[in-house]
Amino acid sequence: MVILLENNATEQQIENVVKHLEDYGFQIHKSTGVQRTIIGAIGVKPNFDTRKIKILDGVSDVYRVTAPYKLASKSFKEEKSIFDIKAVKIGDNEIAMMIGPCSVESEDQIFRLAEVVAKSGAKILRGGAFKPRSSPYSFQGMGVEGLKLMRKAADEFGLLVITEVMQISQIELIYEYADIFQIGARNMQNFALLTEIGKTDKPCMIKRGLSGTIEEWLMSAEYLLSNGNSMVMLCERGIRTFEPYTRNTFDVSAIPMVHKKSHLPVIADPSHATGLRDQVAPMARAAVAAGADGLMIEIHHDPENALSDGPQALLPDQYLQLVEELRMIATAIGRTL
Amino acid sequence: MVILLENNATEQQIENVVKHLEDYGFQIHKSTGVQRTIIGAIGVKPNFDTRKIKILDGVSDVYRVTAPYKLASKSFKEEKSIFDIKAVKIGDNEIAMMIGPCSVESEDQIFRLAEVVAKSGAKILRGGAFKPRSSPYSFQGMGVEGLKLMRKAADEFGLLVITEVMQISQIELIYEYADIFQIGARNMQNFALLTEIGKTDKPCMIKRGLSGTIEEWLMSAEYLLSNGNSMVMLCERGIRTFEPYTRNTFDVSAIPMVHKKSHLPVIADPSHATGLRDQVAPMARAAVAAGADGLMIEIHHDPENALSDGPQALLPDQYLQLVEELRMIATAIGRTL
Amino acid sequence: MVILLENNATEQQIENVVKHLEDYGFQIHKSTGVQRTIIGAIGVKPNFDTRKIKILDGVSDVYRVTAPYKLASKSFKEEKSIFDIKAVKIGDNEIAMMIGPCSVESEDQIFRLAEVVAKSGAKILRGGAFKPRSSPYSFQGMGVEGLKLMRKAADEFGLLVITEVMQISQIELIYEYADIFQIGARNMQNFALLTEIGKTDKPCMIKRGLSGTIEEWLMSAEYLLSNGNSMVMLCERGIRTFEPYTRNTFDVSAIPMVHKKSHLPVIADPSHATGLRDQVAPMARAAVAAGADGLMIEIHHDPENALSDGPQALLPDQYLQLVEELRMIATAIGRTL
Amino acid sequence: MVILLENNATEQQIENVVKHLEDYGFQIHKSTGVQRTIIGAIGVKPNFDTRKIKILDGVSDVYRVTAPYKLASKSFKEEKSIFDIKAVKIGDNEIAMMIGPCSVESEDQIFRLAEVVAKSGAKILRGGAFKPRSSPYSFQGMGVEGLKLMRKAADEFGLLVITEVMQISQIELIYEYADIFQIGARNMQNFALLTEIGKTDKPCMIKRGLSGTIEEWLMSAEYLLSNGNSMVMLCERGIRTFEPYTRNTFDVSAIPMVHKKSHLPVIADPSHATGLRDQVAPMARAAVAAGADGLMIEIHHDPENALSDGPQALLPDQYLQLVEELRMIATAIGRTL
Repeated sequence: MVILLENNATEQQIENVVKHLEDYGFQIHKSTGVQRTIIGAIGVKPNFDTRKIKILDGVSDVYRVTAPYKLASKSFKEEKSIFDIKAVKIGDNEIAMMIGPCSVESEDQIFRLAEVVAKSGAKILRGGAFKPRSSPYSFQGMGVEGLKLMRKAADEFGLLVITEVMQISQIELIYEYADIFQIGARNMQNFALLTEIGKTDKPCMIKRGLSGTIEEWLMSAEYLLSNGNSMVMLCERGIRTFEPYTRNTFDVSAIPMVHKKSHLPVIADPSHATGLRDQVAPMARAAVAAGADGLMIEIHHDPENALSDGPQALLPDQYLQLVEELRMIATAIGRTL
Repeated sequence: MVILLENNATEQQIENVVKHLEDYGFQIHKSTGVQRTIIGAIGVKPNFDTRKIKILDGVSDVYRVTAPYKLASKSFKEEKSIFDIKAVKIGDNEIAMMIGPCSVESEDQIFRLAEVVAKSGAKILRGGAFKPRSSPYSFQGMGVEGLKLMRKAADEFGLLVITEVMQISQIELIYEYADIFQIGARNMQNFALLTEIGKTDKPCMIKRGLSGTIEEWLMSAEYLLSNGNSMVMLCERGIRTFEPYTRNTFDVSAIPMVHKKSHLPVIADPSHATGLRDQVAPMARAAVAAGADGLMIEIHHDPENALSDGPQALLPDQYLQLVEELRMIATAIGRTL
Repeated sequence: MVILLENNATEQQIENVVKHLEDYGFQIHKSTGVQRTIIGAIGVKPNFDTRKIKILDGVSDVYRVTAPYKLASKSFKEEKSIFDIKAVKIGDNEIAMMIGPCSVESEDQIFRLAEVVAKSGAKILRGGAFKPRSSPYSFQGMGVEGLKLMRKAADEFGLLVITEVMQISQIELIYEYADIFQIGARNMQNFALLTEIGKTDKPCMIKRGLSGTIEEWLMSAEYLLSNGNSMVMLCERGIRTFEPYTRNTFDVSAIPMVHKKSHLPVIADPSHATGLRDQVAPMARAAVAAGADGLMIEIHHDPENALSDGPQALLPDQYLQLVEELRMIATAIGRTL
Repeated sequence: MVILLENNATEQQIENVVKHLEDYGFQIHKSTGVQRTIIGAIGVKPNFDTRKIKILDGVSDVYRVTAPYKLASKSFKEEKSIFDIKAVKIGDNEIAMMIGPCSVESEDQIFRLAEVVAKSGAKILRGGAFKPRSSPYSFQGMGVEGLKLMRKAADEFGLLVITEVMQISQIELIYEYADIFQIGARNMQNFALLTEIGKTDKPCMIKRGLSGTIEEWLMSAEYLLSNGNSMVMLCERGIRTFEPYTRNTFDVSAIPMVHKKSHLPVIADPSHATGLRDQVAPMARAAVAAGADGLMIEIHHDPENALSDGPQALLPDQYLQLVEELRMIATAIGRTL
């Protein structure tokens, strides 16, 4: 922490600040310049509330100089994390593809789509069984029946399963049927849920909240890591900005930035980011070009009659063609897909 | 719903759009202008996904023309809702004051502060027992012990209790000790939690999420209302914007806007909105001047040693002085406090 | 400037950073903690590009610890600036009212409205002669004829004139007719225009850009101040956020924040901030309650036929009633209006 | 325009709305549903202020259903615009590269860099002669001398020149030396400047303002188009959001969205969008993958001593390597570079 005193701070004020810092357990380094005094306060207290110093008389500004996350940081672990989930690797050179419908709707539907997923070379099947919906009047998912169908389809085609867990009471059930937990964007800061998932031994992907900063996102990962679960992935799916023409602003620049700050893999979800089928392909290509470790994309063979998010689902053929383009882009940056 | 066709939409495309709308159960009104065709699709389907029409060939834009919330809207109930909670009225002419510490820390602390609250004429004691913290390393609240102390202090001084409920498993416990549930900003879209609170018969205040639109906030209220709980209040506590000098941007303009769209009372929380003691008073005054139905303000007699959010707590004397100013402003707009 | 080295920065990297800092003319204070080294670089270089250090090997983060503005800061001038413009004071205890139509439309219109302005006790007449319009197809103002009419009306009723200057070529002309220059929100960072206004001896009010940070806004003031014009006021008129129900988000919290950082007066413009008549009064009241040094409000006696921004104009009677409320709020905080 | 009446709107209110619309020259289509009445108002009035109707009694909402831009829209011109500037094509299958230093600093500098530009196969040299700087204390560019050097270097290596014009008084001068005008982000809504450039016959690239919506950006293009200049390109360079880790949020999704709404070419500038050298390459790749028609990238052979923006400049070798990757990505989507 670095404290900048005001130009006209008195000796007494400066001493008072120093005393407070020492009482809070910091080691002090004071630098007196021509105009101003700067105090460096050293000590590892990632959750210290810097406002406690900011409100003292004579203080102009306070800068926290250590990231509030530890286990998620590059300082803690230099090399990229690679997870091996039943022989499927995430975070490695190969780009992981998580493909499937928004919601599981029927046995026929999920089997038809799982077949497309397998055919494309992807290894992870996505699908929602419990759906968070902003309207209480909308379809809320098939529930446990959906989980069972997804597991069955995945096993049939040799795929892993990723699905969203919305509340603590669902953890046990989903643990049984899925290979990867997904925390939805609206739950990025549901700390109780994060803590409980952190106590399990199953990998988890945390979607970035619509207004989640990269730092807060890494702090949410920290909740899992500090509770013992080291297999955490992040998923960029668009942030909320002033722009109304696009549903969200897909923050492609977050991908290299997370790679700079953290060792955790970053997945990108262009389907939810854009919300419209014709915008999915360019954004999927952009995410791979920017270095994403994986993609989550929604597909549907009959999107007009999908029970949720049909308009953002690619048709199987559109998806298979996109995979061809993505392979060439992956090659351009020395990766595989 | 209104559908704008493209300038060069063909007859066949227009017919296809009409057919889809009819299949979805809408009644159709087609208007053909010099350059363009507009289709009005009438029918009450608040949760219809307009993107289903937007992706059809020949469609330029689709406008949803009914708000997605019903029970929360002014169309549903013209006059302002007034709740009578053990003889304390919220939404009426008198401005409700919800005052107390960020967290309950000890019996001595909460009794001292409850005394100040009562002395100021306020009727509701606030305080956190379960604390959502962005860092897993921070103080997480006293839990059930905190609830008991707060109830005891409130009873001693004739006050109501409002406290946050973070997860479904806490509802039963908090129901026993509190008079008003509070949903925190990060849980504004925790739909499972909203649904369960909606099934209780206790009033609830929903804080606006950092990136929650007014519409989404009203949709969250709708989750409670549609489950049978009609005593819902909203609480503005700052939104996330590009501005770094202030912690959040306190959206004072949301207050009159909610009053225009909804019959529900709006409370304002300048403590969390600003995060710094010296900004609380001007923003509290602004909220009252803008028409807020209540204020939630944090106080502490020893903020330097508070276990959470000390820097934003007013000292008892600062708070009592603020109340005097607020009374004069309330009078200026024909209200009491 | 404070430089935080990475945990694993080598001695050689640290030396290289120190060498660069010394070459750039900084005085160095190095603090070595258990985990990390922090370097304090002292020297007054407000426009140093901190990224020059950020990209050096071994550097984790760089914090600029002096504000980039000098003359606009409280460090430079502790007491609030008060300007005396032909005996009208701005920044003093009395709240300055700048009232009038969006655009000057005719002699009859501006005289009728100037009469209302004078009657209310306000001392400054606002009105646009050159209008910045986002559409090339919209009314662009009466030009020089508008300036003449506004001056004539102001003189008739003993008022000052404030009007917008959009480009350098208009400065000389507007200098002749107006008492206060206004820089519009879209020109907040038109540095060429700011520089030229800075060379004149007439007061100027700078509106905050829709996405202007408080820091950038003060930097724009710095352009005028550093060119010799010390009579600079700021005007908050709403910022751009994700919220679509309100036209802009009126950043009331910017008012006390500017007062904390700067000695310059802050005016508030609730008309442009909200864009709708029924939202103007609550926001005007909020701005005064938050400590604004002045208000700019649009009025029109026939808003339905106004050539620009009619929907946000108050009718004369609505305005006169608002003034009564504002007077009571001013009294509540020890000011006059 | 579509007008939604309130549920309980009276017959008299509806008639009043209809009368106003007819007076404003619209043709009316009224649809009466079970709960509500919807009025379609047809007539081409792109700059009609919809708030004039929104404030009438009984009106719930008003939707403008035609884009406010005409000449920039796909409705006006279906096929993509391709500009031929001295045999260099922009908007065609080949991706246009605009490469060079932030500022022209010396003859040696611009010649060395122009050689790199030509060697890479790029055909357009970028460089600033007049620099907009947020601080009045920063380097403001070499001025006319810089223009001359850039022209000389471009001619030597067979390149076109693009450079920024900041104010009307510079148009004539820059017209003489440059092949493409550039409007900077801060001038996106400098309507006076746009109007004057619109009267010239030289192509112009308009950078998106930090808080410019796509619609406003296209409106700025409309200012040029409606004044007779049809050779307008747009340039995405990052928008302002809540995220502090990245300088701006590079809105890659704007690229396909502009292509959907307009026929104008879209360039991307990852250098200004990210502000840091190590983020430029991934974002350049993402922009090409998303379909950008060109890239503007800053390079410098000695960035540590660059007079402006050194930290975001690629070294010549980094740039040449990036070009190789970009070529492969271009191929993946059927384009050349």
